[in-house]
Amino acid sequence: MQGQTFTSVPVLFMNVIPSTVRLNNDKTSVLIIDQTRLPREEVYLELRTAESIWEAIYKLRVRGAPAIGITAAFGSYVCALQWKNCSTETFTTNFYQLTQYLDSSRPTAVNLSAALRRMERVVEINLDQSVSKLLDLLLCEAEAIYSEDAAACRRIGELGLSLLTPGMGLLTHCNAGSLATSEYGTALAPIYLGQEKGYNFAVYTDETRPLLQGARLTAYELSRAKVHVTLICDNMVSIVMSKGWVQAVLVGCDRVAMNGDVANKIGTSGVAILAKHYGIPFYVLGPTSTIDPACKSGESIHIEERDRTEISHMWYENPMAPDGINVFNPSFDVTPYHLITAIVTEKGIAYPPYTDTLSQIIK
Amino acid sequence: MQGQTFTSVPVLFMNVIPSTVRLNNDKTSVLIIDQTRLPREEVYLELRTAESIWEAIYKLRVRGAPAIGITAAFGSYVCALQWKNCSTETFTTNFYQLTQYLDSSRPTAVNLSAALRRMERVVEINLDQSVSKLLDLLLCEAEAIYSEDAAACRRIGELGLSLLTPGMGLLTHCNAGSLATSEYGTALAPIYLGQEKGYNFAVYTDETRPLLQGARLTAYELSRAKVHVTLICDNMVSIVMSKGWVQAVLVGCDRVAMNGDVANKIGTSGVAILAKHYGIPFYVLGPTSTIDPACKSGESIHIEERDRTEISHMWYENPMAPDGINVFNPSFDVTPYHLITAIVTEKGIAYPPYTDTLSQIIK
Repeated sequence: MQGQTFTSVPVLFMNVIPSTVRLNNDKTSVLIIDQTRLPREEVYLELRTAESIWEAIYKLRVRGAPAIGITAAFGSYVCALQWKNCSTETFTTNFYQLTQYLDSSRPTAVNLSAALRRMERVVEINLDQSVSKLLDLLLCEAEAIYSEDAAACRRIGELGLSLLTPGMGLLTHCNAGSLATSEYGTALAPIYLGQEKGYNFAVYTDETRPLLQGARLTAYELSRAKVHVTLICDNMVSIVMSKGWVQAVLVGCDRVAMNGDVANKIGTSGVAILAKHYGIPFYVLGPTSTIDPACKSGESIHIEERDRTEISHMWYENPMAPDGINVFNPSFDVTPYHLITAIVTEKGIAYPPYTDTLSQIIK
Repeated sequence: MQGQTFTSVPVLFMNVIPSTVRLNNDKTSVLIIDQTRLPREEVYLELRTAESIWEAIYKLRVRGAPAIGITAAFGSYVCALQWKNCSTETFTTNFYQLTQYLDSSRPTAVNLSAALRRMERVVEINLDQSVSKLLDLLLCEAEAIYSEDAAACRRIGELGLSLLTPGMGLLTHCNAGSLATSEYGTALAPIYLGQEKGYNFAVYTDETRPLLQGARLTAYELSRAKVHVTLICDNMVSIVMSKGWVQAVLVGCDRVAMNGDVANKIGTSGVAILAKHYGIPFYVLGPTSTIDPACKSGESIHIEERDRTEISHMWYENPMAPDGINVFNPSFDVTPYHLITAIVTEKGIAYPPYTDTLSQIIK
């Protein structure tokens, strides 16, 4: 947190799909793309200290629950390298302090805590090992967290792609792409896989007000990967569908209830209603970790409201709404199960009735 | 156009409903509210020269087809005052040059040409009159153009209000209010009349990307009139409707086809589909002058596409989309007749089948 504890590195390591977070080649630092500077600048940060990792998560330089978890896992390993010559006891004490500190960067992100608990657990069950061995095991665990997410996204992509055919027009909302995960993303995974196989999709991304994740992030990462992508405003979804340009909608999810109701970025339910009106399949894509067995239906999902200035002032040089105007700014909405054609997870595709199929998938 | 040919005047003359355009008290200048500075500053401009009137229309300081027509009518009268001591012949020559010049400020605005033609006609059929008499007649004609629009808007408001009940939640899109017309607006007219009668509506206005007429103009004029208004993003219409907060949708129109298809600001068709999904009446309000007897259905309406930077850069200090990203930026869309509950004009309310009812109304 104290000053600049990271350095910018060149873009050279990039694949066509931007890599949100990874270890550098000698595995001594974490490389992230600074999402707060997208799409203006494509700047990669090299993080080596606890403070720089904490700051990157806190300031949303890295965002998307899976990406945050991976950053914390890699970050805790990289920071632990400084104690390689300590005793196991000192190492353990320091490591627990470190994970507690990193966990405080975004207390509400489930994946952050979950990843750090997995790292702590490695130390906990290997207290009889040397520090050198502990470091090896921590690196393995962090790489496993990354790989598991990458494998889930890839599998979601494969299953999602099985629902699509070459040349389709696709529409997506918000950002559920590589910037939010390890590699392929969730909603964007079939698009990237299709791109590799020459499916030649025409993708429409709405800008996703108020925070513009569609314009800033999805448009960025898809065009970076040479996918044919067109940016529209949220209120242009209807005209694009009416023209017959969209054959399927692909969106991510923040929480899936057991009846198939899906909480996702604000605006998702509206897109689902338009898709139903125009007879277009509406697919939700996400890892099984977002299915919440404790949540029977969308009614019990609390919808966070965010600051009014995100609508009235944010991004704008000048305010674009009257001072003191009432604002309603929900961050998510719930799309009811009956508007959803299928829910694609890494363990299979769930079709209605979701009460049955989702239970089977997370068994 | 050469420098500042207008002066700012205090806000004192304002009613609760902002007055877009009017003559000053001694009828020697045109007062307009500078819409390009809304909602940051409420600045009134006093226009006395042809150049200042031309510039105000060209630069969208005054916008909305009826408001532009009224500005041109008042403007041509005010400018003609300088020739009060000329011969009728000189006066006539100068006046035709003036109207031709003003007409060039926005060649596509039909009301602009129509208003100026009416003013020219006054001179044309009174060539035997003194200049003093001509000026009186021109003032009468300009005031008639204003009054006819005001009366139409008021009648649309009365008829629209007959469809509503006190305490209703209403949703509107874009700006079809007093800023676009003489006084009450079209879609907002029932809201203003209801406000006068203590109907206590709760109004939702979406921001209407990309040009933000909802956030900048509708939110401004309704809150200025102490109407309870809440600003939302375009993608929040679905969640607001799902909560049962909206009992009717009121929108304006740019062109009405004879089958009832309506061209209006981009996003209107999406709002209509959501309204249908949630079982909410969807009302279109506009003067009969927007019904186009030459237009059988919405299919023949050409949809203007505007500059990509309105989405990718406009309003923003920094670009919020990648450089060179494809953008689709239609300015209007067509809402099909079967999504429209009624079309409210100053000559009556048209219900389906519109092929019959619209023909009767414009007979």
